[in-house]
Amino acid sequence: MIDNFNGRILLQPNEIPKNWINILPDLPSSMTPLINPMDGKPIPPEMAFAIFPKECVMQEFSLEPFIPIPKDLREIFARTYRPSPLHRALGLERDLGIEGDRIKIFYKNESCSPTGSHKPNTAITQAYYAKKEGTEELVTETGAGQWGSALAYGCNLYRLKCIVYMVRASFIQKPGRTILMRAFNAEVHASPSNLTESGNKFLQKDPKHPGSLGIAISEALEHSMRSDKARYSLGSVVNFVLLHQTIIGQEAKIQLAKVGIKKPDIIIGCMGGGSNFGGLMIPFMKDKLNGTTPDMEFIGVEPRACPSVCKGEYRWDFGDSSMKGPIVKMYTLGHTFVPSPIHAGGLRYHGMAPIISILYKNKFLNTVMHHQTEVINAGIQFARAEGILPAPETAHAIQETINQALKAKENNEKKVILFNFSGHGFFDLLAYKEFMAGNLKEFELPTNEIQRNLDSEEMPIIDETKF
Amino acid sequence: MIDNFNGRILLQPNEIPKNWINILPDLPSSMTPLINPMDGKPIPPEMAFAIFPKECVMQEFSLEPFIPIPKDLREIFARTYRPSPLHRALGLERDLGIEGDRIKIFYKNESCSPTGSHKPNTAITQAYYAKKEGTEELVTETGAGQWGSALAYGCNLYRLKCIVYMVRASFIQKPGRTILMRAFNAEVHASPSNLTESGNKFLQKDPKHPGSLGIAISEALEHSMRSDKARYSLGSVVNFVLLHQTIIGQEAKIQLAKVGIKKPDIIIGCMGGGSNFGGLMIPFMKDKLNGTTPDMEFIGVEPRACPSVCKGEYRWDFGDSSMKGPIVKMYTLGHTFVPSPIHAGGLRYHGMAPIISILYKNKFLNTVMHHQTEVINAGIQFARAEGILPAPETAHAIQETINQALKAKENNEKKVILFNFSGHGFFDLLAYKEFMAGNLKEFELPTNEIQRNLDSEEMPIIDETKF
Repeated sequence: MIDNFNGRILLQPNEIPKNWINILPDLPSSMTPLINPMDGKPIPPEMAFAIFPKECVMQEFSLEPFIPIPKDLREIFARTYRPSPLHRALGLERDLGIEGDRIKIFYKNESCSPTGSHKPNTAITQAYYAKKEGTEELVTETGAGQWGSALAYGCNLYRLKCIVYMVRASFIQKPGRTILMRAFNAEVHASPSNLTESGNKFLQKDPKHPGSLGIAISEALEHSMRSDKARYSLGSVVNFVLLHQTIIGQEAKIQLAKVGIKKPDIIIGCMGGGSNFGGLMIPFMKDKLNGTTPDMEFIGVEPRACPSVCKGEYRWDFGDSSMKGPIVKMYTLGHTFVPSPIHAGGLRYHGMAPIISILYKNKFLNTVMHHQTEVINAGIQFARAEGILPAPETAHAIQETINQALKAKENNEKKVILFNFSGHGFFDLLAYKEFMAGNLKEFELPTNEIQRNLDSEEMPIIDETKF
Repeated sequence: MIDNFNGRILLQPNEIPKNWINILPDLPSSMTPLINPMDGKPIPPEMAFAIFPKECVMQEFSLEPFIPIPKDLREIFARTYRPSPLHRALGLERDLGIEGDRIKIFYKNESCSPTGSHKPNTAITQAYYAKKEGTEELVTETGAGQWGSALAYGCNLYRLKCIVYMVRASFIQKPGRTILMRAFNAEVHASPSNLTESGNKFLQKDPKHPGSLGIAISEALEHSMRSDKARYSLGSVVNFVLLHQTIIGQEAKIQLAKVGIKKPDIIIGCMGGGSNFGGLMIPFMKDKLNGTTPDMEFIGVEPRACPSVCKGEYRWDFGDSSMKGPIVKMYTLGHTFVPSPIHAGGLRYHGMAPIISILYKNKFLNTVMHHQTEVINAGIQFARAEGILPAPETAHAIQETINQALKAKENNEKKVILFNFSGHGFFDLLAYKEFMAGNLKEFELPTNEIQRNLDSEEMPIIDETKF
């Protein structure tokens, strides 16, 4: 019988969720505000309208448990790539020697999107609202280029201009992403660039500065502020981005139900800013927060080179490196931190989404960290088991999934493990090439460097009593 | 309403065709045999068993109109990527100014496969039969790497060893494909190599020889002959490969019917060896040959640098450059021809599938040729219109689709155009980079060079009266 039980569970276009799931009203402690760096006070929505598309700002602050997905946006998703498949990892289970039904591994395959990752879920949405509100241009930053190419795609769909500041290390390492963005009509600049004050500041220190997401955010923010017809677009961290990604977890829930699974025992995702993990886990986390599924485990995976939650501190910090953008309460390594050039460029961010920070702080989720060599090794193991080459970011989630499956096998436990296959590695082949040649480097962030960043005079001091 | 009319027409896994469609019994003139270069006589099936998987050889000669697809093979397709979507090219129609329903453009999207093209349809099938027959190793050649990575994927699925000889020009131009093949556990060699007699012969003439599909075929054939547990695998040209690809056209037929279209007016595909065009068009061609749809037009698109049908001759020729493999009756530029290094590496073959050759000879299909600059320009136009970056090969079909749509618009005709979106361009970004930088070269094969190849003393002379 050829059906869903065969390992690939598909949904119909009319099963695309009709709402995004907002976790804000359910959080164990209330959402922290975004702080204006000028006066140290919470930014009111009206002020944020000048930065982001208005509708996104409204969503950022909303306490409605469900926010409707506009019908014409759902139609665009249906016309392009959603719903995405859920796979049972039968090949990986076989290779791990866990055949049978005691341990089941599932992955939600977001690599089937037009740019190969989960990012278009919010890129298309932001472009949709921007267009509707009369904006003509979206400006953003990108690390490895997953986000930049998604926004280029989204803007192209609605015929908006798209400007991307790309972290120079990745700009050099991953020329393919730049070409893809340009094929979708975007303007791409290596960051730090000489086009902005923020960029120039870093270029003066080092003309070959490798850049960081923090710096690129500063440049994009500055650029977007120049015109009233331009807005800034963000691919992770903020609440509305995680909200847009909740399509992933909602679809996964329906798909698991179709094969008779009420809930997974462990949910895993890699974390850079937190959007793919957030998108998968929020619909399930809501059940845990409501007390329905107290035993469900959530594991966010970070690189050892940039362990924002694992080794960072929960405190107020700038989202960007030039201290121009909002101040956010989150786990952070300090906005002055410039991470090592690991291939998982999408995980090279000094902070973490406030939603994930609050959940971790309140012990509703765990985090772990892995070295890039073991991660890329897991990526190859997965490619050979499942036939899809993962992005280095995604391979972090795979490595942890393998660890959890083997642990359950050793303990003879019954487990359903679900992870987010956030993107394919077709643009990240250099990582695999270096690994196969034995040249892949390991980077681990020394604790004293973290402390130095966090002790920096540049770290903001916020008086919460003044809110 | 979010449904199939929205532009992406999906099928269920249980709608995967249950048979392949064999065009051999319907051809306007009977299929020509494969000739043994040793004695100039037709190769009997038993002799071919030493070259290809036995079941494939049986299919090569079969006159059954339908050949059942094994159930476990259909399950593998269902578990991985089939059925593939059919898209209405609404964005392209808009950009061409043909909105409305007089001219409709559809494309079958084979880029959703794990290696990004239609090639796994036959790669998985060949690996399946090889495994079943006790073969341990498949050896093949590849141009741009689409076929090599598909066979690497297929072999990995069944845990067979895979050896790939890759045309050196592409090996250098497209390192990504090599890494992908190796990630799927294949052994990849630049061709000509020093591992075979055939390779050495060409290396002695020129140590930096750019290679050709013909040379790589010779090397792969020679390599496969060394062991009784190895077989040679071919990704195009022969009947059984086109047969395996008929899944494409059958699905497209069902999908068009779902949106109320009984038949397309024009069917378009690019042609290297002829497998993607063959796979799409054969199920429709069968209707034309049976007299049901006499007006249906079929257009195969070739590069100007390698116009095997457009400028070649219909005659006996070697399939490979070292004259070791079978002699085939086909349109050919001569097996001594080494095509210019255009980016559409999959279209750099001197010959054409006998099935397509016979249909062209009997005027059941037309061919056209395009320059690579106009083709890549069409590729970018398509990416901006439809959000998917095509492989340079595929862009040939797109260019012709655009031409046909504009012609119909000018003539105020009502047309349904269907083309095969054979693969994405994520591994071919250099072509787009060069185009955007204005550095893309045009290559046109001069007629006198073709004549020189065809007049070569190396061309075989076959006495058909001896069969």
